[in-house]
Parts: sequence; structure tokens; C-alpha cells
Amino acid sequence: MMLPFFRGSLIFLPPNSVTDALAKVVSANNHAFHQYTRGFGHPRLVRALADTYGKVMDRSINPNTEILVSVGAYGALFYAVQGLINPGDEAILIEPYFDCYEPMLKVAGGVPVYIPLKPEVTGKKTRSSADWKLDPDELASKFNEKTKVIFLNNPNNPLGKVYSRSELEMIAELCKKHDVVVFADEVYEWLVYEPSKHIKIATLPGMWERTITIGSGGKMFSATGWKIGWAIGPPYLISCLQTMHQNSNYTISTPLQEAMAMGMEHELPLIGKKECYYSVLPAQIRPKRDRIIKLLSEVGMIATVPDGTYFVVADFSNLDVKLDETSSEPKDYQFTKWLISHKKLAAIPVGAFYSPGNKHLAENLVRFTYIKEDSTLDKLETIIKNW
Amino acid sequence: MMLPFFRGSLIFLPPNSVTDALAKVVSANNHAFHQYTRGFGHPRLVRALADTYGKVMDRSINPNTEILVSVGAYGALFYAVQGLINPGDEAILIEPYFDCYEPMLKVAGGVPVYIPLKPEVTGKKTRSSADWKLDPDELASKFNEKTKVIFLNNPNNPLGKVYSRSELEMIAELCKKHDVVVFADEVYEWLVYEPSKHIKIATLPGMWERTITIGSGGKMFSATGWKIGWAIGPPYLISCLQTMHQNSNYTISTPLQEAMAMGMEHELPLIGKKECYYSVLPAQIRPKRDRIIKLLSEVGMIATVPDGTYFVVADFSNLDVKLDETSSEPKDYQFTKWLISHKKLAAIPVGAFYSPGNKHLAENLVRFTYIKEDSTLDKLETIIKNW
Repeated sequence: MMLPFFRGSLIFLPPNSVTDALAKVVSANNHAFHQYTRGFGHPRLVRALADTYGKVMDRSINPNTEILVSVGAYGALFYAVQGLINPGDEAILIEPYFDCYEPMLKVAGGVPVYIPLKPEVTGKKTRSSADWKLDPDELASKFNEKTKVIFLNNPNNPLGKVYSRSELEMIAELCKKHDVVVFADEVYEWLVYEPSKHIKIATLPGMWERTITIGSGGKMFSATGWKIGWAIGPPYLISCLQTMHQNSNYTISTPLQEAMAMGMEHELPLIGKKECYYSVLPAQIRPKRDRIIKLLSEVGMIATVPDGTYFVVADFSNLDVKLDETSSEPKDYQFTKWLISHKKLAAIPVGAFYSPGNKHLAENLVRFTYIKEDSTLDKLETIIKNW
Repeated sequence: MMLPFFRGSLIFLPPNSVTDALAKVVSANNHAFHQYTRGFGHPRLVRALADTYGKVMDRSINPNTEILVSVGAYGALFYAVQGLINPGDEAILIEPYFDCYEPMLKVAGGVPVYIPLKPEVTGKKTRSSADWKLDPDELASKFNEKTKVIFLNNPNNPLGKVYSRSELEMIAELCKKHDVVVFADEVYEWLVYEPSKHIKIATLPGMWERTITIGSGGKMFSATGWKIGWAIGPPYLISCLQTMHQNSNYTISTPLQEAMAMGMEHELPLIGKKECYYSVLPAQIRPKRDRIIKLLSEVGMIATVPDGTYFVVADFSNLDVKLDETSSEPKDYQFTKWLISHKKLAAIPVGAFYSPGNKHLAENLVRFTYIKEDSTLDKLETIIKNW
């Protein structure tokens, strides 16, 4: 059996508040819960979202004009790209980036402009995702009059980087200067480990007006299979996404929206407290993160300690593994194959998150996920001990 | 209060087999039911679809390559249009047509070519949806080397027309002659009143290869809010839709797919029998159809008796209602406003299902829906009695 350390499939159930809510929806015998609801979002869910993010962002959010519920965050990204990108528009992609951005962009005729995060050499035995930084001058050079959008995945998959306020301010200034919109993909917003804090770029001065913040109910409540996501932003931007929604999916599942709304209402008064599910989840996952980092270091891999997400990027260049230097296949791709065939471990080459021209930057890196049962981590430990 | 006879929102609960299945899914405490499933369709659901439609179509269907599960039939239509229509391709739309076809087509750069169904004058007091026919020569004249697709909504919304075998053969011959693909929107396939029989154009000789059959779990199980639909067809066509799915929504809700699969498995051995839900539903609705037709005729409207769907088109030209003949607003639009303001009844002008150049063909027609509680139909009766 192969141990799948490459997929982020959750091994948790959603919290009881959410599964109980769905059970209530089913047992209510209310036909309205099984029939079409409002297209742009079930009324109870958009109210719960407005309340939740109103609190988080400290602003009043209009549930009808400033929120769109979508088929997962993935669906919201699709709407954003299709709704706002015209052929020839340039979009800045920060590498490493979530792999769907680029094909979505190209389908719309957009032109990707790449800029890699680069690790500062720290000399520490372990590295931190915070060491990966944008060069301010290089970033500035990517903006021009054709730039329409910058994709900002915060926290970043695969690195787990959580952008600092000063980093976000630097990006925000460029966006304001060049009239650029931010697609803020914040699906891992709650999966941040103390003392790191997640800051929404939409909350920076002058940024609400130019940011589409994309969130995930699946990530929020460990229910990725419910496929409920959303986009939040000013009406003039959200309306573009609503038009796409109206001409593609039209409306989203009613019973799951109703149940997720109930879950959000349950958490609303708890936000910021330890017992809030949004805080419980990263606290539960943190020991798994620390464990996998320790295990990886025991065989000589250097992990980049993530401040967020449930992924960890590890440098395998110190390992005594024979890879074919003359092959056209990058080393990280070769190493993942070696991991499967020799160690029964599955990981993802980090080059998969880079553009063709920059894949070499990731040649020594693979991504693991640690949102696994403890029993699965036990098996990993056995593999490591017998390395 | 306005009585909404314009929307097709269901007033039924789904059958117990389906709601019980969802209750089981929730109580199973199985995390897999709440996390991502296979993108192109949950394994259990595509198997149930292959079994169900294999039986209906009397052929073997590959669940993995010949089926795509989508966000409702609406989502499948979107994928079909985006996946197959290139800018400049012509698509034949049979009027009256479901109103989403045209904007979806135009977004893809497709060019709509219209052909209206025309009523044969029969001299009968009531009219039948079967009286509405395509002129074979006129239809043949719409095909040329640019024609890529014909949209075939069977049964037709709003007319309730169920195409006969000879009508389908005529369309099929033209499609084969001109190498044209059929988008067979068959969401009302089970809502057909005896003795009418629904025939799938994909089952005609040589038509499987050039048909994408689109179906709806929401219509099948009176659960429109579950937003589960599908496309079935040959792999070379379905793969185009799969590519669109992969770059827009990626996967569909797991718990609802699991539950709907269980519902389909339950019906599978019953297909063709009276007790099968697919037969129970039209039998339940038929008395409502007959009742609304009688009520409409009592005030002098001439209904077109539908052989399928839960819509009825009525001619109001015999009514003594003052409409503005000089207005640029079509009479059917004026009449629906009059219905609301004078009778508190909501209906849809049938002109909404026609292209701008052909709206005059529907100037005396409005569409009502009769999938309403009996208590709502009682209120309609009171309105009619006091007309």
C-alpha cells in the first residue's frame, strides 16, 4: 500500500455542529430545503457569511451585493477569472502557485506574468515559510498598464507562507498605483499556527475596493466534499462573478448551504476564542505538523516550517539518492517517483507549482501533507526509522 | 399575496428513498462522505447512472468515460456549450426554447439560428402540444457547413411537447447528413403523461455517436435544490465537457451524490413498473394538469395540453382584456402584468422563449406551471370562479 502524503484530502469529519445541522435539515421534512434557492447564495448562508466576515474584517458587508456563493472556492476562482479577465490582460502569479490558476487564466485569454518567492538563506537547520519573500523591485517591475490582476494565495499552498502586514502593504501600494485587482485566495485563512496571524489584504486602506476575497466552507469546516465556497468584495466586482454564475451553474445545493449557515451561526459568537472551531482546527493539526517536520529531519530532509496550511515543503538535496542528472525530467519529479518505488511514500514535486521557466527553482523540493490520521503518521514514522 | 404560477419550483419533498438515503449518509460518521470525491462523478453515482441509463437506452454505458456529473443539468449545458462551441459555429435553437441556451451560446461566440415550432390549426376546443411541429423543409434549410449543434429540449419547456419517433428521425437524418451534434436536454424525460412515450434521440441508429444527453437528478427525484445533473454520451464528446468541469468546478458535492446514487439503486429494479418513482411522479401530477386546463378554459383561455413537463401554455386572445395595441411592449408581456395587477396571478410571457424576431409568434400566449400544492390550485379556482 502506498501512503498518500501528497493529497490534502481531509481525514476528519466536519464538526458536530455542522453534521448535526445537516441531519436537522434532512429530518425537517421541509420541501424548501430540497428545492432551488436564491441563485447568488442561500439567504441564510449569505447572512451568516456577512455576519462572520463583517466581524473578521470589521466592516458592514451587504449579503446580497457583496457576496456570491460558489461551487467551492475553485468555482469562485473560475468566476473571478472569467468575469474579469479579457484576452490580453496580464495577471501576476506568485510562484509557487496553486496549479489551477494558470489553466483558468489561459482559458480566459489572460497572460500570466510570473514572480517567484525566494528563500532567504538563514543558516538555520530548519527553514521557515516566512523566509520565502518577494523582491520588492522585481515585483514592481511586473506591473504595467496591461496588468489587470494579481493572484495572492495567503496562506500560500504549497509553502504555508502567511504574508506579513508589511508584505501585504507593499503589494497593496503597487495595486493601487497601477489600478490592479487582487484575487485573494484565502481558503486556508483559519489554518494558521500561532503566533502567526492571518491578515486579509482587503482590510488594508483602499483595498476593499479592489479585492475579491475567496473563501472555502470546505476548508473552514473540514467538509471539502460539500463544495461550498464564496467570493466577497465590492458590488462592482462581485456582479461580474454573479453574471458568470448565472450563466454556468445558476444556483448551489440548498440543503448543504442551509446546514453550513447553521454551522457558521454556531461559531459566530465564538470567533477569536479557543473553543471556536476555526481555532480548534489549527490547534489539532499543529502537533501533526511538528511531528512530520521532526520525522523528515531525521532522514536528512530540510523542512520549510509552514506558518499556515497543512502542507510542508522539504528539501531532499542532502539525501543519498541517486537521481539522473542528465535526464530532462527535473530532480523533484524523479525524487517523488523514487519515494513511491523505494519508500511507498507519495509526495508532490514542488516544480508542479512553478511555470516551465522557473521549475528549476524547486528542483530539490517536494511537498507533503500532514492532515492525516495519527495511524498514518505512525506508518510514516516506521518508514523513517527503517530508512 | 401573489400566486406564483410562473415558477417551476417544486412543492414536493423528494421520495423517502432519497431523503432517507441522505439521512443515512449523514449518520454514517464516515469522513469520506464529507470530503472530495472523484471529480467527474462520485463512483457510486456514475455506476448507478450507467445502470439506469444502460437499462433505459438498452446499451452498455461506461461510467467513467461516458458520463459526467455536473452542477445540475444547467451546469452540464454550460459545459457542453463551452466545451464544443467555437466562435462562429452555428447552433440551431428550436423556438420556444429554454431561456439559458441563447446567452450560454453567445458567451462561447456561437451564432444562434432559430426555427420555430408552429401550431397546426386543428379546430379543437383544446390544443395539444403535439400540434406544434417543425416544418421539415424549413428545418433542412437551417443546416449548413457552419452548423455545429442543434439544441433539442425533449420534452419541451414551455410547450410540454414530446417529440414523436418520426420527428426525431427527421432531425437525426439532418444531423447525420451535416455532421451535427445534438444537445439533448431531457430534464423532463420522466414527466411524460401516458399514452405519450419519451424517446431518446441518442437511441436512434447512428445517433449515440453524436448526442450529448443531459439529465437532471433534481427533476428525477423532485430535489432541484440538490443541483445534481449529468451528461451522457460518447467519450470523445464527454471528454470535452470533462475538461471544462476540471477547470471550473472540479468536483460536485459528495454527500448528495452518495444519497442520490442510493435513490437510483432503489429505483433500478422498478423501472417501467407503476411503483417506480419515475412513474409515480407523472401520475401524481397529471390530475393537477387536468385541473388547471379545465380552470383556464372556464375563463376562455385555450390551453395547449402538454404531453410532458409541468407547464401549460395558454392562449388568452379570447379574453376581454384591454391591452395597448400601439405599445411597443408585446401583448403577452402586457397580459402577464394585467394578470398580476388584476388577478394576483403570476405567469410568464411565452415571448420570453423566442428570439427577438419571432416574439410575435407568442403574442397571445402565457405559460403557467401546475406543480403546486392543491391548496394553491384551490386559490386559483377561487380566482377563476370570481373572474
